[in-house]
Amino acid sequence: MKTGQEYKDSLRGRNIKVYFKGELLDGNTLIDNPYIRGHVNSAAMTYEMAFDPKYEDLLTATSHLTGKKINRFTHIHQSVEDLLTKVRMLRAVSLNTGTCYQRCVGLDAVNAVYTTTFEMDQKFGTNYHERLVDFLKQWQENDWMVAGAMTDPKGDRSLRPSQQADPDLFVHVTQKDDKGIYVSGAKAHMTGMVNSHWMILMPTSGYGEEDKDYCVCCAVPVDAPGIIHIFGRQTNDGRKEEGEIDQGNACYGVVGGECLTVLEDVFVPWDKVFMCGEFQYSGMLVERFACYHRQNYGGCKGGVSDIVIGAAATIADMSGYSKAAHIKDKLNYMIHLTETLYACSVACSAMGTKTASGAYYVDPLLANVGKHNVTQLIYDIDRIAQDIGGGLLATLPSEADLRSPEVGKYVEKFFKGVASVPTEDRMRMVRLLEVMTGGVALVESMHGAGSPQAQRIMYSKLSNLEAKKAAAKKIAGVKP
Amino acid sequence: MKTGQEYKDSLRGRNIKVYFKGELLDGNTLIDNPYIRGHVNSAAMTYEMAFDPKYEDLLTATSHLTGKKINRFTHIHQSVEDLLTKVRMLRAVSLNTGTCYQRCVGLDAVNAVYTTTFEMDQKFGTNYHERLVDFLKQWQENDWMVAGAMTDPKGDRSLRPSQQADPDLFVHVTQKDDKGIYVSGAKAHMTGMVNSHWMILMPTSGYGEEDKDYCVCCAVPVDAPGIIHIFGRQTNDGRKEEGEIDQGNACYGVVGGECLTVLEDVFVPWDKVFMCGEFQYSGMLVERFACYHRQNYGGCKGGVSDIVIGAAATIADMSGYSKAAHIKDKLNYMIHLTETLYACSVACSAMGTKTASGAYYVDPLLANVGKHNVTQLIYDIDRIAQDIGGGLLATLPSEADLRSPEVGKYVEKFFKGVASVPTEDRMRMVRLLEVMTGGVALVESMHGAGSPQAQRIMYSKLSNLEAKKAAAKKIAGVKP
Amino acid sequence: MKTGQEYKDSLRGRNIKVYFKGELLDGNTLIDNPYIRGHVNSAAMTYEMAFDPKYEDLLTATSHLTGKKINRFTHIHQSVEDLLTKVRMLRAVSLNTGTCYQRCVGLDAVNAVYTTTFEMDQKFGTNYHERLVDFLKQWQENDWMVAGAMTDPKGDRSLRPSQQADPDLFVHVTQKDDKGIYVSGAKAHMTGMVNSHWMILMPTSGYGEEDKDYCVCCAVPVDAPGIIHIFGRQTNDGRKEEGEIDQGNACYGVVGGECLTVLEDVFVPWDKVFMCGEFQYSGMLVERFACYHRQNYGGCKGGVSDIVIGAAATIADMSGYSKAAHIKDKLNYMIHLTETLYACSVACSAMGTKTASGAYYVDPLLANVGKHNVTQLIYDIDRIAQDIGGGLLATLPSEADLRSPEVGKYVEKFFKGVASVPTEDRMRMVRLLEVMTGGVALVESMHGAGSPQAQRIMYSKLSNLEAKKAAAKKIAGVKP
Amino acid sequence: MKTGQEYKDSLRGRNIKVYFKGELLDGNTLIDNPYIRGHVNSAAMTYEMAFDPKYEDLLTATSHLTGKKINRFTHIHQSVEDLLTKVRMLRAVSLNTGTCYQRCVGLDAVNAVYTTTFEMDQKFGTNYHERLVDFLKQWQENDWMVAGAMTDPKGDRSLRPSQQADPDLFVHVTQKDDKGIYVSGAKAHMTGMVNSHWMILMPTSGYGEEDKDYCVCCAVPVDAPGIIHIFGRQTNDGRKEEGEIDQGNACYGVVGGECLTVLEDVFVPWDKVFMCGEFQYSGMLVERFACYHRQNYGGCKGGVSDIVIGAAATIADMSGYSKAAHIKDKLNYMIHLTETLYACSVACSAMGTKTASGAYYVDPLLANVGKHNVTQLIYDIDRIAQDIGGGLLATLPSEADLRSPEVGKYVEKFFKGVASVPTEDRMRMVRLLEVMTGGVALVESMHGAGSPQAQRIMYSKLSNLEAKKAAAKKIAGVKP
Repeated sequence: MKTGQEYKDSLRGRNIKVYFKGELLDGNTLIDNPYIRGHVNSAAMTYEMAFDPKYEDLLTATSHLTGKKINRFTHIHQSVEDLLTKVRMLRAVSLNTGTCYQRCVGLDAVNAVYTTTFEMDQKFGTNYHERLVDFLKQWQENDWMVAGAMTDPKGDRSLRPSQQADPDLFVHVTQKDDKGIYVSGAKAHMTGMVNSHWMILMPTSGYGEEDKDYCVCCAVPVDAPGIIHIFGRQTNDGRKEEGEIDQGNACYGVVGGECLTVLEDVFVPWDKVFMCGEFQYSGMLVERFACYHRQNYGGCKGGVSDIVIGAAATIADMSGYSKAAHIKDKLNYMIHLTETLYACSVACSAMGTKTASGAYYVDPLLANVGKHNVTQLIYDIDRIAQDIGGGLLATLPSEADLRSPEVGKYVEKFFKGVASVPTEDRMRMVRLLEVMTGGVALVESMHGAGSPQAQRIMYSKLSNLEAKKAAAKKIAGVKP
Repeated sequence: MKTGQEYKDSLRGRNIKVYFKGELLDGNTLIDNPYIRGHVNSAAMTYEMAFDPKYEDLLTATSHLTGKKINRFTHIHQSVEDLLTKVRMLRAVSLNTGTCYQRCVGLDAVNAVYTTTFEMDQKFGTNYHERLVDFLKQWQENDWMVAGAMTDPKGDRSLRPSQQADPDLFVHVTQKDDKGIYVSGAKAHMTGMVNSHWMILMPTSGYGEEDKDYCVCCAVPVDAPGIIHIFGRQTNDGRKEEGEIDQGNACYGVVGGECLTVLEDVFVPWDKVFMCGEFQYSGMLVERFACYHRQNYGGCKGGVSDIVIGAAATIADMSGYSKAAHIKDKLNYMIHLTETLYACSVACSAMGTKTASGAYYVDPLLANVGKHNVTQLIYDIDRIAQDIGGGLLATLPSEADLRSPEVGKYVEKFFKGVASVPTEDRMRMVRLLEVMTGGVALVESMHGAGSPQAQRIMYSKLSNLEAKKAAAKKIAGVKP
Repeated sequence: MKTGQEYKDSLRGRNIKVYFKGELLDGNTLIDNPYIRGHVNSAAMTYEMAFDPKYEDLLTATSHLTGKKINRFTHIHQSVEDLLTKVRMLRAVSLNTGTCYQRCVGLDAVNAVYTTTFEMDQKFGTNYHERLVDFLKQWQENDWMVAGAMTDPKGDRSLRPSQQADPDLFVHVTQKDDKGIYVSGAKAHMTGMVNSHWMILMPTSGYGEEDKDYCVCCAVPVDAPGIIHIFGRQTNDGRKEEGEIDQGNACYGVVGGECLTVLEDVFVPWDKVFMCGEFQYSGMLVERFACYHRQNYGGCKGGVSDIVIGAAATIADMSGYSKAAHIKDKLNYMIHLTETLYACSVACSAMGTKTASGAYYVDPLLANVGKHNVTQLIYDIDRIAQDIGGGLLATLPSEADLRSPEVGKYVEKFFKGVASVPTEDRMRMVRLLEVMTGGVALVESMHGAGSPQAQRIMYSKLSNLEAKKAAAKKIAGVKP
Repeated sequence: MKTGQEYKDSLRGRNIKVYFKGELLDGNTLIDNPYIRGHVNSAAMTYEMAFDPKYEDLLTATSHLTGKKINRFTHIHQSVEDLLTKVRMLRAVSLNTGTCYQRCVGLDAVNAVYTTTFEMDQKFGTNYHERLVDFLKQWQENDWMVAGAMTDPKGDRSLRPSQQADPDLFVHVTQKDDKGIYVSGAKAHMTGMVNSHWMILMPTSGYGEEDKDYCVCCAVPVDAPGIIHIFGRQTNDGRKEEGEIDQGNACYGVVGGECLTVLEDVFVPWDKVFMCGEFQYSGMLVERFACYHRQNYGGCKGGVSDIVIGAAATIADMSGYSKAAHIKDKLNYMIHLTETLYACSVACSAMGTKTASGAYYVDPLLANVGKHNVTQLIYDIDRIAQDIGGGLLATLPSEADLRSPEVGKYVEKFFKGVASVPTEDRMRMVRLLEVMTGGVALVESMHGAGSPQAQRIMYSKLSNLEAKKAAAKKIAGVKP
């Protein structure tokens, strides 16, 4: 296993091409870049905590392939207990970063590919599963961070991949030879990509035969030839070039440092290809990944919401209104909502089942329920936090004003709350709450792991409405 | 184990005193009374399903006291799996009754008393736990139905028991001798009481020394001398004396057949007394019972909501609008809400832990979260069901009109939906939805197992807000 | 103008045919029937208050046809002030009945027919408007109560009227001659029908030419030959044959006493026909009626909710918890929701405009907004009321138990709240809250004046989305 | 009346002291500063539209003091129609700016001071009203923009002004002489202050005698000696120094350019003092201002939400999913919520009444209801907008990437939606939605014109709960 420092060091000296605000960033100092540093620190926490005795049980596991102790973020779930531990782990890491640490995407990808390739091989006699296992052994050995790359840009949403004006709007195989395949297209919203070592490409949806070229799954280094990353903007990103306070969470930042990853005829050798045209299993792969990923949100967002609750409660303390009945009630309601999210992640894990491959899979209906709640309840939690936090969330002057020889004294004097609390501390909490309750933090809760409608569609499929109708008819005395 | 029929037979020939609408009901034919029959049928389902191979795994368990196969409704939870199975069992029974079957209350009471008496005996050197174990052996052997009796009438809610104008507004010990104790007072909202064999009395809240006479826990037969039951009214109860259709759920009724149970100097021998004045443990007992009971709601109400969803979907089918996008979306949302409730019950079970007694206890925070969601989401589910169900829920004529030689033809003709569905069937579904989405069904979701504020209070106690504040400060860079 | 007593007297001695529970009720004593009496009392309030100096300004108006003082429930709105006064009037009447008084339906019908026939005559050269004016003069003179009859049974909702297996599932013209027309079919959910003098039949939706036989509007006495009414069941209707307390609102009942009104070849002379085949105006008529009717709900339900708030607050007083912060906050929130409903009714009135006929019409978008809020917020208000009201709402024994020589003393003793309040009073408030927050009261809020989806559809039509898009593009700097 | 250009010109050449990020900005070029320019442009719209024949009726009025045509933002409301026109005006201006134009604060302040000083003078024989009228004549003549300055920093919220450790945490009178008074302290969250000509200082709450030094109301030029403004940060403010697209609303910005305004012994001559120690009227003044200001939100936020709806609908068009049923339904729901807000503003205006001064005052209960809905429904509207808007709201690259010779082509290619729409246009709409649905825009909806709890407290005061209880008791048959 890598330490946090080893992880960071391993990200230097790559040929990775990352553009931001029109400039090519230097791959060697990429992780020192103020726009990227926080995301790296956050991801590094998944490495650091594995060496912390307090969290070791949560952050490590025993490889079912090698028997060695590995970072849990590289583990194939071997039991319901593993699924539950994943959720506990996510909440624990969030409590230490207050934001996304990105590494769950690769974990979910490998579990999805692992279980799907096993069943696909059984059906078609292919050997994708074996290839994946080989790759996974290296992955565990090197304790890589791997990005899961599913979402295509999608162009006109009313058209399928092969119907688009531009065939590259979905990643597809452009050429095959005896050495491997070539893929083109792009993946959007790529969490943690630029500070990962590899990515696993997956199709963005289940397809029929007419779109089988879009049914491709494979592993590629993030700095492979033909790959360019364009790093997205974040809310208040400009503040990362200023002082510490105004960033809110200066060390770990916010959300996952998403980028657009462009692929132009990228070569992938056959031993890293895990699906290539088997459209019949594209739906299963996507659903498996989606459900593993939706499992997470009550864990990671649960921990993130704990910080939001803590920040709101602290501002109330610092401002002198924490004893007001309506403040206490609002905090209790935030706790209620946070634990509701957590309950869903726990439940879909507890109801997990063994797949043909031996790996455990979450209950897909409950995993969707959890993510769907996130798309609503995080907004509620953050709204209440802004209620408690007060108008300063929108009008506080900058740290530069606090430090100013001319006006610093006024900032100090007039943004003081309870007399015993330093104004700077109160400003820090306001800025933390600001960064956690607005912009990208909200949007990520809405669209990460699938937009709300994606979950609604799954309900129709997974909930067995016919059985409910039959039971209702029986009780009402309606003959079948 | 008793069969359903044996259970029913066992309820005849008792000296139980039940009043309804000012009349004393005949104890011998009590269970044939139209106001009571449905509740008995529903409770009997917990006996019947234990003999059904399809449900045997859910409905039976192995006694940790005797090693014998017992009905799970008499079982002390020996593992997390037991806690999870309880939730699955509740959902399964609800799917067969569409309503409350009342028997969980005694189950939760005995688990709460079991775990509390163990710890109380350790502290005080008493032998309450042993007494309970003896009683429980008979209970399991006889497969009794036992009512859990906690809620006192409470009088003026701003006063403690000993401050009330009338000391009997909370059950209390009036006298003790070497044979036993005498208790007076009443218990309100007693679910399933008149079709139970025994009741377990418990204090209604945790108290201090000044209210120690109110800290009493004991088992009493429901037909013991000095006990009178006054059976409560239910929504549309008058229809139980009419035909079948208008009742909606003619076989099983609705909610739990609650009553007021009055106790006047009721004698309880010492071997049936499990707490008597140990006020220090009254809070623990109440909290344990509350949490075990709050665990249930995502199971039982989950199953009940499945029926509501099925009924709404069936009415949509029968009326020709089940293909409308907004109807499908509303059904999906009902499913979402139902599974959210279920998730909470599963989660608090999965996070259950072993108590000192060896019995397993649910995660109390998550159990409260589940019940609190019930107080809101059942209202949402039922509101949507009424949206789908249509205005007929409020204006449908009676079954007598359908059967009338004069106007039956009009009812037949004009309440026809899709041509192929008999009007009577559509009327049955409307009546089922009516009974399940209004009146007592809603109120029970609100107040059963504790009113919403009771859960909010628990959040303050259970959620460790200080740790959240500390984590937020650390991330914001605020020095401790 | 009629007094309340004169109104009641005028309902005797008719040939009206009303069936309930399979029995033909006696027309002469119809208004004494326990199932109907409350609805009559409630409607009579609209007559009584017109003679009360305190309410005279609200309940009366000056006829624009005759210059005479008339009951406002027979008035054509001549100004925005008239529209606003209507809303104030509705809230005032509700505050005195706690339930529906039914008479707004005819008022809304006549305003809709008045404005539509004027424009239809202008287009087609017909003389429907003149006929209506003649009829309206008599109506005002006699101070009739007139039912508005729009909703057809509708059969299979996926089919239009002429596509139904049974042509009678929508009211239609079966024959015409020089004296008049003959209509057949039925109207469902007919509010206040059996205690009205006349009904105005209207089509249930806008149609095309293929359904023009269904585009018929005319006035018919409720006891005309060929008409049969089948009175619907209401929640807890059986209690109306028992004592007073258990009814909750023994004097005025709940909701509008809906029935199914069957028409078999009912003759209507030409001077009472206001539309006959002019399908082009069927949509306008329906929309006008719907919007006038949706205007009401913040008025009438506002007043009804005031009573719910008052009842909940009184129970809190009587039980000793009215000083708890969460109770106060819940009452404030109920007030907030109630006033939100009221605001919508006020707003659609204030934004009303003059039609070609000279009569004033509400703002249709805001009228829909008001009704749509009712379909959600009444459920919220009633849910909170049930929260405050407590579990007794579902388990309280009957009045007969309170009166019982054997158990009355226990009821008296154990349902006492604050010592100074008689138990009977507390029971009365619990029963009032029960009847107002469940069953038909909720369903009426959902479906009366159109189900939620009916309002959503209107939003697409009325909100000018294209203008919003254009404004957004301009601000974003997108060229048109 | 000033034109927009004249307004802008009038802001140059002042001695105003504004600090931002620790730097003193140049007063002469203040309005060209990228952080301030947008707010000026938005405020200028209130001047420009007064000269636009299309909006003249809304934006102008006739002075009741001089009979001259004036900008409505300087008008004392003379009728209910004036109150309604104000709301219409606000919605119209918002539709042209998509954000706050700040000028309503001064309008609300002068109406509050106007009505309060009249009644105060009647009571105390003072001549404050006359002073205000003199000032107002100049104001109308010069068409000034005037900031309303109410909110004090407040320090420890559990203490009253005179109890604070630092007496300056609330603005107070430090000295009086025959020429005037001296005031010290600060006002926080000052909307539009730096681009106003004058400010009206008002107390932040109603006080008793012990805090009478804090009961001061007066007018001061924003560049008077002793005044310093510290301009607050806004979400994504750094982007204002970059290109146009990433700002979202490059011309008008977002929210009101709030600042902290510090006052150090600022001299105010007696003719500009409108309250000085009359604590008995401090509560009335605050409540009047609050209610006039709360009236606005359904107008201004209604228009802002129209733009949000338009932007979301446009993104759906541009991305190919505008025909999906769930998208249409979400847009309809956004319309519903927006019109609910508008309805409240209309209603509190329509129910407005004449004060003793002759000026009209909104219905205070309904004004509070409107603002309270804003604190919830804007969050709902924006959440749905983010749902429709998609994940790009959080991950879109910068305009610089679009313009980049190296990667511009990829941005162009992969962020294309429907083939016929330029990628740049789609990016513009995403950025517009981003700026309108996050950060300061949300917080302003929560806390502007008073935090949610401020409205809840008003409900207790304004809703006459006792009358509701009495009405409920009467209907339930409870004797008074």
